[in-house]
Amino acid sequence: MMVPPIALVTDFGLADWYVGVMKAVILSVNPEVSLIDVTHSVPPQDVLAADFAVLASYAYLPQGSVVVVVVDPGVGGERRVLCAVSEGRSYVFPDNGVLTGLLDRAGFDSLVKVENSEYFLEPVSSTFHGRDIFAPVAAHLSLGVEPERLGPMVSDYVRLDIPRPELRGDRAITRIRWVDGFGNLITDCQDIVLDELCGTRGDLSIDLGPKGEIPVVSTYQSVEPNHPAAMIGSSGCLEISIREGSAARALGLTIGDTVTLKKR
Amino acid sequence: MMVPPIALVTDFGLADWYVGVMKAVILSVNPEVSLIDVTHSVPPQDVLAADFAVLASYAYLPQGSVVVVVVDPGVGGERRVLCAVSEGRSYVFPDNGVLTGLLDRAGFDSLVKVENSEYFLEPVSSTFHGRDIFAPVAAHLSLGVEPERLGPMVSDYVRLDIPRPELRGDRAITRIRWVDGFGNLITDCQDIVLDELCGTRGDLSIDLGPKGEIPVVSTYQSVEPNHPAAMIGSSGCLEISIREGSAARALGLTIGDTVTLKKR
Amino acid sequence: MMVPPIALVTDFGLADWYVGVMKAVILSVNPEVSLIDVTHSVPPQDVLAADFAVLASYAYLPQGSVVVVVVDPGVGGERRVLCAVSEGRSYVFPDNGVLTGLLDRAGFDSLVKVENSEYFLEPVSSTFHGRDIFAPVAAHLSLGVEPERLGPMVSDYVRLDIPRPELRGDRAITRIRWVDGFGNLITDCQDIVLDELCGTRGDLSIDLGPKGEIPVVSTYQSVEPNHPAAMIGSSGCLEISIREGSAARALGLTIGDTVTLKKR
Repeated sequence: MMVPPIALVTDFGLADWYVGVMKAVILSVNPEVSLIDVTHSVPPQDVLAADFAVLASYAYLPQGSVVVVVVDPGVGGERRVLCAVSEGRSYVFPDNGVLTGLLDRAGFDSLVKVENSEYFLEPVSSTFHGRDIFAPVAAHLSLGVEPERLGPMVSDYVRLDIPRPELRGDRAITRIRWVDGFGNLITDCQDIVLDELCGTRGDLSIDLGPKGEIPVVSTYQSVEPNHPAAMIGSSGCLEISIREGSAARALGLTIGDTVTLKKR
Repeated sequence: MMVPPIALVTDFGLADWYVGVMKAVILSVNPEVSLIDVTHSVPPQDVLAADFAVLASYAYLPQGSVVVVVVDPGVGGERRVLCAVSEGRSYVFPDNGVLTGLLDRAGFDSLVKVENSEYFLEPVSSTFHGRDIFAPVAAHLSLGVEPERLGPMVSDYVRLDIPRPELRGDRAITRIRWVDGFGNLITDCQDIVLDELCGTRGDLSIDLGPKGEIPVVSTYQSVEPNHPAAMIGSSGCLEISIREGSAARALGLTIGDTVTLKKR
Repeated sequence: MMVPPIALVTDFGLADWYVGVMKAVILSVNPEVSLIDVTHSVPPQDVLAADFAVLASYAYLPQGSVVVVVVDPGVGGERRVLCAVSEGRSYVFPDNGVLTGLLDRAGFDSLVKVENSEYFLEPVSSTFHGRDIFAPVAAHLSLGVEPERLGPMVSDYVRLDIPRPELRGDRAITRIRWVDGFGNLITDCQDIVLDELCGTRGDLSIDLGPKGEIPVVSTYQSVEPNHPAAMIGSSGCLEISIREGSAARALGLTIGDTVTLKKR
């Protein structure tokens, strides 16, 4: 039988042995599994940013993948660990809202509370459930263990109240959800919002107030180097970029800031 | 037969092709093997830090793993390359003391000097034994080559004189061995030292002199955000952390610094 | 049949999900393939630096490897995607000169324009061909798809005019092609240039003008800590290093700078 891969989304960074130890635990349980590092650079404990990283990537993960999300400021406290099955993939995650966007968009077929310690590494520490719970549970899922074996079905989960783009007349208020390594500012504004606002891209711009306007374009090729422009990027959302430069640095904007889109 | 994974501990960082080339050499010899990046962010040529990274992670590596440690300031000189078998795992490492802590704690079943160039990449450069010796030797070990084939048994190896926590009356002098990506300060002080000093965690604190005291607690949940606290962390040692902040930056402490633990 | 690995060279960095999504697409097509991260830290859009990273690493990649190079400032524009077969390895790359050095040195057996969308992820975005074209094409190649299936044979490709070391009497003008994570300055000066200039290494030095001279040596062991020296490094080219320090920082030199080699 083909073994599906395990994909990892964490805020552990790559400087320490934390991710390596999670992989060591996974391969101890399932030596054949492939591992995909989606990202380990979620800003520390930033549940909202992790939510966005999952939304931007999940559709590309192979059918049957097991996705482990460890952005977990509540580790060692009362928060639950959950396992959801959604569109043929399994997700193991702390119940802190980190999958709000995914479960809203894709829905889920089942949701269980992970509590069967038969699948944990013993003893379970109070500080590193990534190693002691998430990793071994994911490895067992990749071996074919049914989610129902992990614990009881539950119907509720923590949902974050994530702001969405707001249409206000001929304007839309959007938010920066991720700043990538090139300094591109990725907003929550999907294609469909642009369509509602205006049929023609060329008629839209981002209004930075006294700092001026940024045109919404269709390809990077239509912009001069070192000039900012916005376009629907690879994550399906509007991004502000500077060709051969960092929009984050040049514009002084970061995660959580709002930007206003308007008709020109 | 199941192929055990190869785990890598280096100071090569991830910016260059050095780790990738080691993996390319490994997969040329053993195309089936899984690879675990424990860490490539050991501070350059810091043998003591590498010693600690191995100690913090080895117990989680699958039985049969081959562990490659390349923190090797003496590359190209007279230092030997050794292979040790310890608790069912094989280690290939430069004889510079980098496994002092591991071999002290776990002992070893056999120790050989690696000198059989049949298992090397030829020609062997004078600057990159990670690629030319460590990687291909590890790959052959993962294929089942017996360590005895690599070279003659030896009984001695370089042992670093690593300071241990010192009990002085109602105080213990401990040392910071690693600063992780979150800015947590990980000391050499294991649980057992706390037990010797005092039965109750709540009675202990870290004495920073004029900078005040830091309480020793049992879980992060018992500390306010932005306040420092110390607890036994995931590596089994006392760590100083600041919830939602960097203890390293806030306290101005780093690898090698001593901290004093005392009864309150 | 043994599946050859896929090796990745990109400027995507590791902070975002871009590399992870490429791997997800690859494993969706070929779940068995091994992946080698050669480097993802090519300076953004620096085609010349990527050219050098490939030159420094390709000879170590297993026979049959599929190499994906995504340093692609022209994404979404008119530039072609090519596939070359060279010395038993396949390369998928944007036609922007990024393989100039490799194709000059190793030659190629075949060269095709990649245009058969049967092997693409649909719809193809205008910003992320790494995910939509390069990754799935590489995965199909690793499954044994013949390059001829990807598109028509072509005979021309973009060649960069990369300066080579120049001999001028008893001097050679060389260029820094890469600065590694340790701060070593790697030049384009291969062993053979030193031979042409002078038979004996000990008679050569690097002339920094008013900043003095740096000796060319045979091993790091012959240099004092914190003193700069130059030697043929692991990439086969002359490197300027400072034992236990960063030559880049100490000397204020970086990618693209020239350095002069002379007889002492």
